[in-house]
Amino acid sequence: MESLRTQWEAACSRSPALRFVDIGLRGFGQVMFQDNSLTGLLFLAAIAWGSIVAGVPHVLLAGVLGAVASTLTAVWLNADKTALMAGLYGYNGVLVGLALATFLAQGVALWIYVALGAAVSTVATLGTTNALKPFGAPALTAPFVGVTWIMLLATYGFAGLSGAALPAAGVVAPFEPAAPVSVGLGAYLAGTLLSISQVFLKASVISALLLLVGLAVSSVPAALFALGGAMLAVAVAHVFGAESDLVTQGLLGFSPVLTAIALGVTFRRPSLKTTLYAALGVIFTVVAQAALNVALRPFALPALTAPFVLVSWMFLLPGEESKTSSKPE
Amino acid sequence: MESLRTQWEAACSRSPALRFVDIGLRGFGQVMFQDNSLTGLLFLAAIAWGSIVAGVPHVLLAGVLGAVASTLTAVWLNADKTALMAGLYGYNGVLVGLALATFLAQGVALWIYVALGAAVSTVATLGTTNALKPFGAPALTAPFVGVTWIMLLATYGFAGLSGAALPAAGVVAPFEPAAPVSVGLGAYLAGTLLSISQVFLKASVISALLLLVGLAVSSVPAALFALGGAMLAVAVAHVFGAESDLVTQGLLGFSPVLTAIALGVTFRRPSLKTTLYAALGVIFTVVAQAALNVALRPFALPALTAPFVLVSWMFLLPGEESKTSSKPE
Amino acid sequence: MESLRTQWEAACSRSPALRFVDIGLRGFGQVMFQDNSLTGLLFLAAIAWGSIVAGVPHVLLAGVLGAVASTLTAVWLNADKTALMAGLYGYNGVLVGLALATFLAQGVALWIYVALGAAVSTVATLGTTNALKPFGAPALTAPFVGVTWIMLLATYGFAGLSGAALPAAGVVAPFEPAAPVSVGLGAYLAGTLLSISQVFLKASVISALLLLVGLAVSSVPAALFALGGAMLAVAVAHVFGAESDLVTQGLLGFSPVLTAIALGVTFRRPSLKTTLYAALGVIFTVVAQAALNVALRPFALPALTAPFVLVSWMFLLPGEESKTSSKPE
Repeated sequence: MESLRTQWEAACSRSPALRFVDIGLRGFGQVMFQDNSLTGLLFLAAIAWGSIVAGVPHVLLAGVLGAVASTLTAVWLNADKTALMAGLYGYNGVLVGLALATFLAQGVALWIYVALGAAVSTVATLGTTNALKPFGAPALTAPFVGVTWIMLLATYGFAGLSGAALPAAGVVAPFEPAAPVSVGLGAYLAGTLLSISQVFLKASVISALLLLVGLAVSSVPAALFALGGAMLAVAVAHVFGAESDLVTQGLLGFSPVLTAIALGVTFRRPSLKTTLYAALGVIFTVVAQAALNVALRPFALPALTAPFVLVSWMFLLPGEESKTSSKPE
Repeated sequence: MESLRTQWEAACSRSPALRFVDIGLRGFGQVMFQDNSLTGLLFLAAIAWGSIVAGVPHVLLAGVLGAVASTLTAVWLNADKTALMAGLYGYNGVLVGLALATFLAQGVALWIYVALGAAVSTVATLGTTNALKPFGAPALTAPFVGVTWIMLLATYGFAGLSGAALPAAGVVAPFEPAAPVSVGLGAYLAGTLLSISQVFLKASVISALLLLVGLAVSSVPAALFALGGAMLAVAVAHVFGAESDLVTQGLLGFSPVLTAIALGVTFRRPSLKTTLYAALGVIFTVVAQAALNVALRPFALPALTAPFVLVSWMFLLPGEESKTSSKPE
Repeated sequence: MESLRTQWEAACSRSPALRFVDIGLRGFGQVMFQDNSLTGLLFLAAIAWGSIVAGVPHVLLAGVLGAVASTLTAVWLNADKTALMAGLYGYNGVLVGLALATFLAQGVALWIYVALGAAVSTVATLGTTNALKPFGAPALTAPFVGVTWIMLLATYGFAGLSGAALPAAGVVAPFEPAAPVSVGLGAYLAGTLLSISQVFLKASVISALLLLVGLAVSSVPAALFALGGAMLAVAVAHVFGAESDLVTQGLLGFSPVLTAIALGVTFRRPSLKTTLYAALGVIFTVVAQAALNVALRPFALPALTAPFVLVSWMFLLPGEESKTSSKPE
């Protein structure tokens, strides 16, 4: 495996086309913080599977177009080469493509929209990264969320683009469960796995497993935190009495999965304290996900990964030393 | 009095338990910017009185739980010791506890919710403080507002938690007064005093007087600015023709009270210019409070002290020298 | 012309009153980034024409009051003298005055409101400028947008101030065109020119031409980018199928006009790359304008120039080098 990786790296060094493919794959991997092209390939397979079984193969294509358009924009703008090579100007474009194609109806305008959104997501990534540098916080998926919200909102004012799967608008009202919910082990496991696949807007157990394998080939702790984060999130959502369908479809768990990896592995030195801190973050991400689902109802918008961004920034801004150190006075 | 204070300080130095009580009391005091445990004790008495006469003694308990949970979280996260001892990791937790218990129905879930919210408010305080340090602006009650809004919104998606006193959702519509309002001296005074007690979400004249005494034992100027801010705010609200009930219940004046102390005493060198600047801030806080009451209607959320935070940041960000200095060219 | 300018400058140096007039006029010019009092005079003429033909001469007066109140506030607060002399503490006040008088009914309360809003806009400008300094981003019209939104929202809670031309509140719903739209050359040109005059909330071709002349006497590139930005914006809005009335009245094009000047001329070194980058910004500003029109519907608020501020910050935050340089590796 290591020699295969070396061979691939050598091939990429020789061929600009292969290098571009490598960067694109890393863009897919970076959606879950992995700078690894094999991970990206497995993530791509997960998206392909989820899109094809759901009968929406064009969503896969939109994800690829997003990766290409956002990466080319980064090249045009002379973006930092190290970050570019690591796929850091690709993951927001991937998500913009997947989300626009998931929520909007097919058509020529959609493809223009995806390319435009992916290009702008790179500008937003450069800007967000610069703006957050003094605070030691990463851009996360904020560029994806911001650009996609703006573009989805605008479709309500454009006849050329229409929502296919956007949520309905409505006023805020308390949730009244039809009957007391008791969740079985099957539903619990389904909710856990779909929480992982919903990171890529897919509801597929196979996709979830491909994503876990993809994480594991790059970082076993990342895979474990993704799984643990999903398990904790689904449990918390049940305890608070969230709507069963949301929970079992993984729709309250995908943001917490990202919070778990970000706070537990990627941006902090792993330790027991870090793990407990990440768990607190995961629990609050479930609350924030429920909150944003409600807050966005008047705008007929999906929350996307905004709860993850919000809570992770909140938990990363205090800085490292106040968290993982245990230095004596 | 001074010797009593010295004795108390000595006792706290000997006993970690007393020190923790002292920190907790200062947390109550810091809601109105006072690093003083006697002030905190009087504030606690004001909350106790307001909670008991309103028949909601558990609200007092929630405030205390908020102080404890947020302070313990700060200890766990090795927060800055000077700030910790001054109660700066307690006041947001106090307010989270009071607000959640005021707006939500009682039950086991509420107590979990209060502890969770208070703990997260400390994380948010650490993050906000870090993020605002380069701009010379304090966190104020932004952590309380942010965390409480998220948690209240989420209850609309959770069957396990329900609103008991949350405002109803609705679309924005112009306010049409039933009849021309002429306010008597009694209503004016009531509005002024309740504006002060509403800082702690209480509508009680006795509580207001306890709060003023609490302020005065720590800082007479703070007490005077609180009273003056309330008087100005109630007058401005009447002049603009705000809803009588909101004015006389102090619901348009509590944010301006905080603005008055913050801009007039706590974060600026007192002077005539500072006072005029604070007065401009108080007037605009009344406008901002009316604005946020309207803006939050679609979300069925209370504005809390967000208008105070918004306007105080706006007025503090220009920095000291452009305001109180009168240096010659 | 140059000698006239020299004479004017000399007269201003002798007379504080003339200097104040000069600063006020530059405040009008700075709405479109021009530090030039002749430009300001032509802009003032454009507003006067637009206000008088529309039968609302008091709007012109409110703009002037806004300039005066915001500039006096800057003097009081010892604001930076170079910025003051360049009219940088006037343009937000001008816009606050124009917007409040455009959207609210006449009366004594309106004039108090305009003076208050203009004064606070200067505080907000000082604060925003300070806060954005580390990021190399300018305040743009954010103070105007923030202050005006708060003040318009508050009128829904005040009986003393009422909306005369505020949009109606409503839930978000997809836009359904009555019939396929084919736009003629006349409508296209009208939409282009009105996009320019709507920067000052006017729908007048004569005003638009005065504005273009005003820009040209200060900077021919600025005039060209304004025109080009408007042409591109109107074309993009049509391609996406935006509502005809919005497009032909210039209501989707005024924010893009400002984006075009800001990104293409004022804050970046002009080049082909800069022009393409600005074009991308203009296109996305059209999308953002449509988005904000929708997002503000529940609040019954106009978007003002928020889309311009949002997109320009997004496109300016990446910093200069990543955009206009073409340095070899």
